[in-house]
Parts: sequence; C-alpha cells; structure tokens
Amino acid sequence: MAPRSVPEPVLIRGTGLLGTSIGLGLRSAGADTYLSDPSPSAQAVAVDIGAGRPFPGDITASSAASAAVEAGSTDGTTTGAETAPVPGVVVVAAPPDVAGQVVIDSLVRFPGAVVLDIASVKGAIRREVDAAVVGGHLTPAQAARYVGTHPMAGRERSGPVAARGALFTAAPWVVCAKEETSPEAVSVAEEIARVLGATVHRMTAEDHDASVALISHLPQIAASLVSSRLQETPAQSLALSGNGLRDTTRIAASDPQLWVQILAANAPDILEILYGVREDLDRLIATMEEPTAPGARLDIAQLIAEGNAGHARIPGKHGAPPQAFAVVTVIVDDTPGQISAVLQDVGEAGVNVEDLRMDHSAGHEVGMLEISVLPGRKQDLTDALTAQGWKVV
Amino acid sequence: MAPRSVPEPVLIRGTGLLGTSIGLGLRSAGADTYLSDPSPSAQAVAVDIGAGRPFPGDITASSAASAAVEAGSTDGTTTGAETAPVPGVVVVAAPPDVAGQVVIDSLVRFPGAVVLDIASVKGAIRREVDAAVVGGHLTPAQAARYVGTHPMAGRERSGPVAARGALFTAAPWVVCAKEETSPEAVSVAEEIARVLGATVHRMTAEDHDASVALISHLPQIAASLVSSRLQETPAQSLALSGNGLRDTTRIAASDPQLWVQILAANAPDILEILYGVREDLDRLIATMEEPTAPGARLDIAQLIAEGNAGHARIPGKHGAPPQAFAVVTVIVDDTPGQISAVLQDVGEAGVNVEDLRMDHSAGHEVGMLEISVLPGRKQDLTDALTAQGWKVV
Repeated sequence: MAPRSVPEPVLIRGTGLLGTSIGLGLRSAGADTYLSDPSPSAQAVAVDIGAGRPFPGDITASSAASAAVEAGSTDGTTTGAETAPVPGVVVVAAPPDVAGQVVIDSLVRFPGAVVLDIASVKGAIRREVDAAVVGGHLTPAQAARYVGTHPMAGRERSGPVAARGALFTAAPWVVCAKEETSPEAVSVAEEIARVLGATVHRMTAEDHDASVALISHLPQIAASLVSSRLQETPAQSLALSGNGLRDTTRIAASDPQLWVQILAANAPDILEILYGVREDLDRLIATMEEPTAPGARLDIAQLIAEGNAGHARIPGKHGAPPQAFAVVTVIVDDTPGQISAVLQDVGEAGVNVEDLRMDHSAGHEVGMLEISVLPGRKQDLTDALTAQGWKVV
Repeated sequence: MAPRSVPEPVLIRGTGLLGTSIGLGLRSAGADTYLSDPSPSAQAVAVDIGAGRPFPGDITASSAASAAVEAGSTDGTTTGAETAPVPGVVVVAAPPDVAGQVVIDSLVRFPGAVVLDIASVKGAIRREVDAAVVGGHLTPAQAARYVGTHPMAGRERSGPVAARGALFTAAPWVVCAKEETSPEAVSVAEEIARVLGATVHRMTAEDHDASVALISHLPQIAASLVSSRLQETPAQSLALSGNGLRDTTRIAASDPQLWVQILAANAPDILEILYGVREDLDRLIATMEEPTAPGARLDIAQLIAEGNAGHARIPGKHGAPPQAFAVVTVIVDDTPGQISAVLQDVGEAGVNVEDLRMDHSAGHEVGMLEISVLPGRKQDLTDALTAQGWKVV
C-alpha cells in the first residue's frame, strides 16, 4: 500500500504542525512513518494522533550537534541508533534556525536516505550544506541526497494538535534542486509532495527566496506595521473598523518566534524589497507634506495606480488569469442555517460559487454574504435569489 | 409613509454609488427624493433605477460657485430655481474635493433645509463652512443647518449602477456635530442614517478624521505599497501567492481618483501615522541589515509582537470584544452546490457560522471552506461533518 517510489520507512524529524501533518498524510497513504522531536511531549502528541511511531534511536537536538562534528571521521554509525530502523527518507521539519544542522546530521547519520527539509527559506540551508562539503563534514555524495522543499501551507496555527493530513491539499510545494542533486532524491521529494495532494513547483533556492520575500514576507511585515499602529487607538475609532482593516491585518496575528527566524534567514531578499517600499513611502510622505504643491496630486494618484497595476497581476483561482468575478451580496440573519439556506438556493439556480466571504459590522445581528460568481451569471443569480425572498443588495 | 422626522422632499446632490444608494434606500422607506448631478448621464441612470426624480432647478457645479459668491448679498433665491420644489433636506454626495462648496451652496440656496454631506473626510469641509461664516458668505444660522456625516460603506465599486438601497445595512454611519449645530439638523441626519439601516456613531470631525486615517487610509496605503512591488514580479513567483498576499492587498484595487481626494483632504492626520510607520520600517531595515548583531532578533520579534498586540484590539463581529473563533476547514470540490451542501450539514448540526471564507490555491479544482464557529462548538461540528463524509482538515 506504500506510495510508489517513496522509500520506507519515512523518518520525520520535528513534530510541529507541518511535520505532524506530513506524518498523518503519509500514513493515510499507506506509508510507514517514524517520528522524532526534541520535545518529548510534542512527539507524544504526534504519536497519539497517529502521525507515526516514535523513532527508537537517540537523535535529539543535543546529539545532533555532536553527530555533525563526528561526521568527518565516522560515517553515520552513531551510538544509540543500533536498534533503530534505517529510514529511506528523512523529512526535516525542524524550526528554520536549526533545520540546516538537522539536515547535515541526517545526511551523515543515515547513509542511504534521501533527506529533505520543509523550512520556508531555502538559500540559507543550502549554503549550510554546501559549507559542510567545503569544510569536509559532508562528502559531495552525501550532499547530493539533500533536497530543499517548501510546502506553502501553515494556516496561522501551530503545534501537532492543529495538524491534519490534508493540510497540503491543493497547496503549492516548491522543490529546489541543484545540478549536483541526485535525480532519485528529487523524484522522492516530488512524490511525497504529490502523495500529500500538493502541486510541485520547481525553482532554484534563490528564486524561491526572492519569491517568498515578496509574496509572503512583505505582506507579513506590512500587516505587522499597520497593526502596530493600532496599539494605542481609542476604542471608538476601532469600532468603525471594516473589512479593509481586517483583511489587511489578518496575518498580523502570526507567531513572533517563527517569524523572527524566517525574516532573519531571508534578510537580503527582504531588504531589497523594503528599500523599494521605503522609497515609495518617503515619496508619499514628502508629497503629503505639501499636498497642494504642483504635481502632488498626480504623485498620490500614481501610488494608488501602481498598486492597482501590481494587484491586477495576482493570479486568480486555480492559477487562472486574474479575473474580476461579479459579487452578489445577500443580507443574512445571524442564525444557524441562514447561510446554508442562501447557498442551497444558489446551488439550485445552478450557479457555481467562485468565492465567498462574510462582511460583518459592529453592532448588528445581520451580516452580508458576498458571493462571487462568473460575471455572466450575476443577473441570473440576483433574480433567482430575489425570487426566493432574499434581500440582495 | 415617509420616515418620522425626515422633512421632505430630500434632494440628493451627486448620484454616484453612495448618493444613488441613499436615494434608493429613502425611496423604499417611503420618502420623496429628488436627484441632481453635474453629469446628465449619471443622473439619468440614477433616475432610471428608481433613486428619485430629476431636480428641476439649475444647480449644476458651474452654477454652484456663483451661488456661493452671491451668498453675501442674496439669501438663497437664485435664478432658475423658481419652479423647483423646496427640499427639507439636502444630502451632498459630491466627490470630496467639491463637497464643501456644494454644502455652502446648498445652505445658501435652500434657506430652510438641513444640509448634510457624506464625504469620507470631515474636518476639511467643516473648515470650509466655518471659513464661509468668517468671510461673510454664510450666516451662523445658515451654518447651523449643516451636519457632516460619513456612512462607512462603499464596497470597492462605484457609479450609480452599483447602487443598492440596502448598501448601508449594518454599516457604521458617523455623525459629526458641533456645539453650534442645530439639534434639529443633527436629529434629521441621524434619522436618515437609521432609516437606511446604519448605526449612528457620534464623534467630532477631528476624532473622525484621526480614526479613519488609521482604520481606513493607512490600510489603503499599505495595500498600495505592497501591491506596487508586484509590478515586475515574475509569474512563477506570483503563482505561489496565497491568501496572505490576497488579503493584504485586496483594497489595492481601489479608484486612484477617489483616493487622491481622500488622502489629500486628510493629509495631516495620515502623515502623523506615516511618520510612525516610517520609524518602525527604518528600525526594521537597520536591524535586518545586521541580522546577527546582538539584540537584532529581539527587535524583529518585537515588531511582530507589536503587530499581534495591535491586531488583537480590532473588535470582533457585532462590536463584541475581539474573539478568537475556532476554524473548521472542509475540502470542497469546485462544483455548484458543494458549499451549500456543507453548510446545510452545518445548519443541521445546529452550529452557527460566525465567519466564512474560501481558500483557493493555484492549479487545483478544489477549495478549502473555512468555517469559523464558537470555540466550544468546533469538536461537535468536526464530528458531525466527518460523519456526513466531509473531508475536514
């Protein structure tokens, strides 16, 4: 029942949200998995919810460092691992700060295994592995078994309890190989991504890091900068908050300890973008200090127009070209069953829901359900819902 | 059938999205409305969709300026308005740049009418009215009939075609009176907001402008700054985009011509906030230039933590204290009826949907439906949906 071309057993080092979810997903695909985490309680929870068996060897964080040091002389046969099974694949799901060391340790400790990591910045780990080759701690053949990957899922939660085997369904999973990487290792990494339901995107570590600096790290910084301004805001101001503020700041609730590792690891790529943002911000501030100066209004309009242009390039659903769906807004009471009743009528009208959101305002027991549909279906749907007695606004 | 204490007829000057929606809403509440817009085609569309009758008097933009100039000598009896009805209320729904002049013109032209405007920045118009009193163009009694208001709805669309009478349902509607404002004018403004289904928030023009600088104008600027960076991004990078980027940049699609007026009118309040943002950004850049310096990591974590703290202050649904709802995520196929089928099962489980969103990824024909529920109901709902065969992740 094991997935084609995933050599078993799979050892997952790190049982946070992602590691545990990988374990659950691989197990439900029929693969044999082992788990290891420096935190005994995190590991126990992951085992309890069925992500795999505890790995019997001693490969905790403290022993990892010494294994890496020993790597020059021994070749992976370390103490305490005698009775341990020999993994065919090691998935390093450790925090970004230590992922590189755990990768190197795994390459040394498990001579035959493909080793992949899933940290959200790829260049720094790649450089650590390359440096270990230069320093004589890894042979080129050992390094060729390493593949850097990044499953782009996470959902603002953390820890094994939040894990779900289907976490990666429909998510992009970036696979970063080098020329020297063994083709077998690459195909194992890609097969794991596919088994878990993700879509493989191949790119270099450099392209990956530049991409996530822009599409993931910059939005996080912007959300945090905006939210930070709300710390002293009077409650009467916040009571006016709408979806604009809510959407712009949603990811500001992220974990500082995780993000400090991500931002520090990708500092050069992020900096290049932040310099551009600072230039735009400086220009906007200068313009707004003299809002009646000649050209000032054009400058402000330019910033918004450039935002329009950049925003229009974000791909639509399913990677389709960006598309403006038509929105049909329905007023619903805040009681169980109301939303499903609306959507049942939408389904009966034969119209597909392309996107969906609730729009709430303070102080009201009603909400607006915004249903995005293909532009050509908007009138049909409006008519059908109105005929069923819904208040379409 | 007219609403209590709204003196009729109501004249709406400006038939964009908001003016037309106000006309539709007042009409469906039984009030008699007239419409006027310098654009004959915009006015004709608004009349056609039933927002009111065309106002017979000549009160276009070009005549407004001369009326204001004449105001010192005449008292509202201007040429061309002889056959026109006498409005009890004038709602100024002109663009922000000209709203002040249209307010002053209306106060002069219609001696008995309560005059309110709905522009999104209030201090600048207030100052124009006050200056007209100082300059002798308005009497204090005329100025006392003016009330500045701001209905916080808009929905990223514009023009009369997008108008809906229920646009203001459950939206905050800020009413800014001064000590000198006639109590009758304030109660008329508040009644109109209530008739249209909005919630009245009373505050000074100064407090309003400081509030919207933070909760509306800053998010717009942040979304535009982030989106602007996407203009040259390779498509393979954008293919990795997730909801983090989509949410943070959603409002970047806004109209540059409208926003240049809003930002210019509220420049001092916005600048004060942007100085703070620039300080934080400069600190972050300096830290990231030396990410291994002592204290650097603490500085980065501090920014994210401050974002957490500010974000946590945004009120929850219905103005309730901020509350972390539990999220149940269900995988749905991209076919008509799937979402309603899930939500019907949610309704049958007796669980109320507190919030709802779709999470799409590029390249897949499935989506994740994220259902927010009260934390105590999460397990029940997960069990109920799993029992019905849904894939809960």
